[in-house]
Amino acid sequence: MRELEERIRRDGQVLPGGILKVDSFVNHQVDAALMDRCGRELAARFAQLGATKVLTAEISGIAPALTTALHLGIPVVYARKTKPITMPDQVYLTLAPSHTKGRTVELIVSPEYLATGERVLIIDDFLASGATILGLVRLAEAAGARVIGIGALIEKTFEGGRAALESVGVPVESLTRIDAMDGGRIIFAA
Amino acid sequence: MRELEERIRRDGQVLPGGILKVDSFVNHQVDAALMDRCGRELAARFAQLGATKVLTAEISGIAPALTTALHLGIPVVYARKTKPITMPDQVYLTLAPSHTKGRTVELIVSPEYLATGERVLIIDDFLASGATILGLVRLAEAAGARVIGIGALIEKTFEGGRAALESVGVPVESLTRIDAMDGGRIIFAA
Repeated sequence: MRELEERIRRDGQVLPGGILKVDSFVNHQVDAALMDRCGRELAARFAQLGATKVLTAEISGIAPALTTALHLGIPVVYARKTKPITMPDQVYLTLAPSHTKGRTVELIVSPEYLATGERVLIIDDFLASGATILGLVRLAEAAGARVIGIGALIEKTFEGGRAALESVGVPVESLTRIDAMDGGRIIFAA
Repeated sequence: MRELEERIRRDGQVLPGGILKVDSFVNHQVDAALMDRCGRELAARFAQLGATKVLTAEISGIAPALTTALHLGIPVVYARKTKPITMPDQVYLTLAPSHTKGRTVELIVSPEYLATGERVLIIDDFLASGATILGLVRLAEAAGARVIGIGALIEKTFEGGRAALESVGVPVESLTRIDAMDGGRIIFAA
């Protein structure tokens, strides 16, 4: 998606440790109109697959997942990282290593909102190592739901996430693909 | 807003401790289309005030704030509760007691995205005691920005938030107002 790529080129910042900072339009501050267009594009790419629910992880997955769900006309569920008091005692819980937090986080979904027979589209802001998304896949499978597609705004191809997701056997779509971040320069896939 | 009130009446659950559980359409699972209509309604109520930015707090404020920002054509900033590694060392930080967490949480905004001269519309899912929203007001003021309005999806009038916000001196709009939750029954303001 050219618009998102140009925005990353203009406003993205490469930080030490292979971190791409997009806090001015994706995380922390969100360009709502851009996020809506990203959601429309992701929805279009998965429109034929009959998804019944979008699944993401809090916090930064919420914005792209919400706009994708809006354009597909289905609800979105965001996995929690801490169990709120409103959640039942019995939950689906998995552990996933967090790239940006440097530790393992819990991903928790209530059985109330993820059920057998659902067709789940997983959406996140980044596809890097794929660890968070694989955690969401495990939650969906634990619920007896079927993952039908995986979408992300930004893929860092050099972190191997796409290969890690191959075993899921579903289409993986990213709106932009970054092949390298060298000396502060962002190199997109051709 | 009648649609939201009817949805709360149908799907909201009163839990012990005065908690209103709306996890099936606002928190955890989000009805994206409903959230879009709530955002459009909040945007309409503040349309004349010249907001340049929507400010909210992660996590559950993100969905209504994003759709409100979308309909106003402005960006949204969500205050973080933990400082991510992408954030500069110098930040705006305030403490706010969290009703549902039973403890004090930090609200953190980067000076990169909240500046002097901004006209800030604060949006959150709930207006209860007003503590979180007052925290967001302090962050905006610390940044030299001006709060021009406060909006929420659901106001619990019996928790006193509206009075607590009076000193801010700006319009406060909530899409639904709950006067009491007695024995599991939800009583809306007339």
